[in-house]
Amino acid sequence: MEQIIQTLSWKNGFLEIVDQSRLPLEERHIKLFTVKQVYSAIKTLKIRGAPAIGLAASFGLFLAARQIKTKNKDQFFSLIQKNATYLKSCRPTAYNLFYGIDRLIEVVKQNIHLSMEEIIMTMEKECVKMFNEDLHSSVKISEFGEKLIRDGMKILTHCNAGALATSGIGTALAPVYLAAKRNKTVEVFVDETRPVLQGARLTMWELKKAGIKCTLICDNMAGFLMQQKNIDIVITGADRIARNGDTANKIGTYSVAVLARFHNIPFYVAAPMSTFDFSLSDGRGIPIEQRDKTEVEYIGGKRIAPADIDVYNPAFDITPANLITGFITEKGIFRPDEIENLTT
Amino acid sequence: MEQIIQTLSWKNGFLEIVDQSRLPLEERHIKLFTVKQVYSAIKTLKIRGAPAIGLAASFGLFLAARQIKTKNKDQFFSLIQKNATYLKSCRPTAYNLFYGIDRLIEVVKQNIHLSMEEIIMTMEKECVKMFNEDLHSSVKISEFGEKLIRDGMKILTHCNAGALATSGIGTALAPVYLAAKRNKTVEVFVDETRPVLQGARLTMWELKKAGIKCTLICDNMAGFLMQQKNIDIVITGADRIARNGDTANKIGTYSVAVLARFHNIPFYVAAPMSTFDFSLSDGRGIPIEQRDKTEVEYIGGKRIAPADIDVYNPAFDITPANLITGFITEKGIFRPDEIENLTT
Repeated sequence: MEQIIQTLSWKNGFLEIVDQSRLPLEERHIKLFTVKQVYSAIKTLKIRGAPAIGLAASFGLFLAARQIKTKNKDQFFSLIQKNATYLKSCRPTAYNLFYGIDRLIEVVKQNIHLSMEEIIMTMEKECVKMFNEDLHSSVKISEFGEKLIRDGMKILTHCNAGALATSGIGTALAPVYLAAKRNKTVEVFVDETRPVLQGARLTMWELKKAGIKCTLICDNMAGFLMQQKNIDIVITGADRIARNGDTANKIGTYSVAVLARFHNIPFYVAAPMSTFDFSLSDGRGIPIEQRDKTEVEYIGGKRIAPADIDVYNPAFDITPANLITGFITEKGIFRPDEIENLTT
Repeated sequence: MEQIIQTLSWKNGFLEIVDQSRLPLEERHIKLFTVKQVYSAIKTLKIRGAPAIGLAASFGLFLAARQIKTKNKDQFFSLIQKNATYLKSCRPTAYNLFYGIDRLIEVVKQNIHLSMEEIIMTMEKECVKMFNEDLHSSVKISEFGEKLIRDGMKILTHCNAGALATSGIGTALAPVYLAAKRNKTVEVFVDETRPVLQGARLTMWELKKAGIKCTLICDNMAGFLMQQKNIDIVITGADRIARNGDTANKIGTYSVAVLARFHNIPFYVAAPMSTFDFSLSDGRGIPIEQRDKTEVEYIGGKRIAPADIDVYNPAFDITPANLITGFITEKGIFRPDEIENLTT
């Protein structure tokens, strides 16, 4: 299946990304040459979506490694770890960031006997490997998930878990793209996803680009659509999934899951294995990022609330496993209670 | 209890309102001299909130009557009815609009034997009477509702059902104001209420003005707060209540009611009797206003979604009676199954 958008690409020396903070008004590609630029791009949501964050951070660590000047290997490794810690501090929730960085550190450790030039080369190879794995995961997720989508289905999604969130065609949206390609009639209802509006800005943009029938709604309209039997299935992405299936995803996902349960609508989470944190027995251990109140108070530079007020702005919430019908992964579709077995 | 804001006031010749489309950035009072100005003010949400709409429309009909030039009483009555139909076409959902207009028509009918000058005077008197009734309803609703609010409670509200929605201190917020006045510690979580942001713009503004502790959230955060046991009670207003208790209110209310039920949190609707449409056996008969897609696509003049997309933008939804714990009215607090008895 053809790529919808090259969200990030490695250009032998720098990372090129679409600046998602400017979408949908402008499709601007920017070049990241340093670890600080990568950190800042992730922090300011120029690149977002758990798998894409993981890949960008990994390339960021490689960019850092390449710029280390020392000839001392201990110092080299210590600087790698320092940069790894720095990158991990960027955003706390998406597990893919930790997964990617840890895999690179592991590769460095395993090749510590090689020359520094060679170690750096293995890091680059590992980054490209992860990029391709993510691409492949998208394809597999699309194939497994597509079977869930019947002709004529109306699908609800929250936030953006599409091409803009991965190196491939996405997680939650991947099955939709494949279903459409296979000539199934599909319609996607897109939660705008306040406060950062990833649904309105990003999901609508890429669905429209791909020619998929889609309708934008405010987050508070999803329940009403379900009540009217206008939603057949919910598919969202994930930022971190614990061993028992508890899932952190964009704020509002939990509400959608409760509404889906109330209306007996299947609720699926689509994510690659790099989003699963098998070290956590349940969702209680997942850190929830609190973001700045200005994200809620201002839209496009315009204040929408009185000055000097209290705002609660968690970027994610936790959907308990018992509200999730299944997980669509590159290894297949699993019930929450089957996840534990995937560790081995 | 002192008035928080003079949302609308009758100045012997014109209606003065706060232009709510400019809040919270600017508190501008505007004068309405003609029925067309009133119609336009309601249509463009300069004045909104079911009780306030009902009052404004009633004064609008009086302003129309006063400008009728004919000496022929049949023609006079026919022009009154024409203007009534015009005003009723302004917004379809809030019952108070129909209630107010119909009461004025009834007054005209009952006084049709009087001179036209006298009829117009009775219309003005009826408008002022309805204004004062609404003021009184606020007070009674505050007194009945305040008993539901225990010290330390965290209250969730949706949209604006406060002073800005009535001639008094509101419906849903009235009990909160009284509880605070009686030195109960209360905290209000305010759904921003997309797309028009009545929560962020209006409820936050008046709660802050009144010195009530309040926190702004995006609509999709309410479920997460409930999951964390941070909401003790939900109180919203209503735009129209059917005989069985089915309630039309601002879009998103239904989702909040489902979430409240899922978390075993009491869900109350506060409204004066002028919001109850006893002609409807259930909510299926309530017309739902669909508003322009630009309300969702633009915020403060800035486009937040791609051009040329489909948008679903219902202004209201229907919360079925079985999700409503009780109705706080000027006559007391009632369960949904008790409403039918209030007709008599």
